[in-house]
Amino acid sequence: MKIGILGTGMVGRIHAAKLIELGHDVLIGTQDPAKTLARTDKDMMGNVPFGAWHKDNPKAKLATMADAAAHGELVINALNGHACVPVLKALAGELRGKDLIDISNPLDFSKGMPPTLFASNDTSLGEQIQAAIPGTHVVKALNTMNAFIQVDAKSLANGAHSSFVCGDDAGAKERVTAFLKTAYGWEDVIDLGGIANSRGPEMFLPLWLRLWGSLQIPSFSIKVVR
Amino acid sequence: MKIGILGTGMVGRIHAAKLIELGHDVLIGTQDPAKTLARTDKDMMGNVPFGAWHKDNPKAKLATMADAAAHGELVINALNGHACVPVLKALAGELRGKDLIDISNPLDFSKGMPPTLFASNDTSLGEQIQAAIPGTHVVKALNTMNAFIQVDAKSLANGAHSSFVCGDDAGAKERVTAFLKTAYGWEDVIDLGGIANSRGPEMFLPLWLRLWGSLQIPSFSIKVVR
Repeated sequence: MKIGILGTGMVGRIHAAKLIELGHDVLIGTQDPAKTLARTDKDMMGNVPFGAWHKDNPKAKLATMADAAAHGELVINALNGHACVPVLKALAGELRGKDLIDISNPLDFSKGMPPTLFASNDTSLGEQIQAAIPGTHVVKALNTMNAFIQVDAKSLANGAHSSFVCGDDAGAKERVTAFLKTAYGWEDVIDLGGIANSRGPEMFLPLWLRLWGSLQIPSFSIKVVR
Repeated sequence: MKIGILGTGMVGRIHAAKLIELGHDVLIGTQDPAKTLARTDKDMMGNVPFGAWHKDNPKAKLATMADAAAHGELVINALNGHACVPVLKALAGELRGKDLIDISNPLDFSKGMPPTLFASNDTSLGEQIQAAIPGTHVVKALNTMNAFIQVDAKSLANGAHSSFVCGDDAGAKERVTAFLKTAYGWEDVIDLGGIANSRGPEMFLPLWLRLWGSLQIPSFSIKVVR
């Protein structure tokens, strides 16, 4: 399957590596490919520059945002929360009619740690993105756990934990749910309803961040026990 | 143990019934006991008036807020979120030096369903309560699941799910954690740190509310799988 991944940070890289391993045709999008490959600094989370990662993952093809969005039959938004809305709005043409998996979180690091949310309570980043690209089927998913677990649910407790989808298009949610199960091994995918319900999983982040602080490991997830 | 419970709604009643069953000496506090007993209307959640419940639970003693707060060696805040801060502030004298388990959530039903939060992101009800009664050890706990599960963790999946505590006083958190384990059967109680971390479990509520909507049952809880 042709898949476009928007964003060259750790989340985008981990999804790209997994999807290439599964045999998908992946294009990773960035604003300026030459500039991204030329970077030598680590990011704010201490991750190696993209070029260094790329040497170990030569099958990962880098392109402009527009080319990656145009390439994908399915597109994954792995952009920094702050960047999402303007970048995706500019890609409205390339994304029209497609399913977009939105993993982003509205994290605001400007007021210290742990970060607060720049959209919450009576709005969410998921619904702001959907409003910016009304011709695209936005499905909020996988924003509630570490990226390594996102792409390999069975790596934790043999998959005995939960993930969520929200979106206004029933068909897109079904396709994304099937993709999460088939590609990433998720067994428990809970449909929370329309895209405005992104407020739920996004507002889980403040608890996730504090659990990370308490448990001192990022490799955890929640199971909805019922 | 002498326990004061503030609030005569379903949460207060369920805790009272459980603690009386366990042999504790419980006093339930309300603003005006005569008025509470005289009520004949159901509450907004469709629960029977306190008097009707009281007939089936004759051992549950009703008193003023001040008497219930003074009575308890341990006090449980089961008040409506909106009412908490002024009511507790007025009880600062009776509550001084005591442990207060705060179960409340800052739910705002004024803008339709599901409710939003009237305190979140850069504040929380837990920390507002602590600021209002600085002489009391406030421990946020049990606000992330239905009251029947709060008092009987083993009623769901034999207890294989998680609860959280936040509080500024380490001794109070230890005592409350021991109480949750002994009285209510909790096995996995995760310490999230100081009371300002109440933002985490309180901001879980928007996800809890949407899970309730999707699952169509209130009898669920989350397990932190790690």
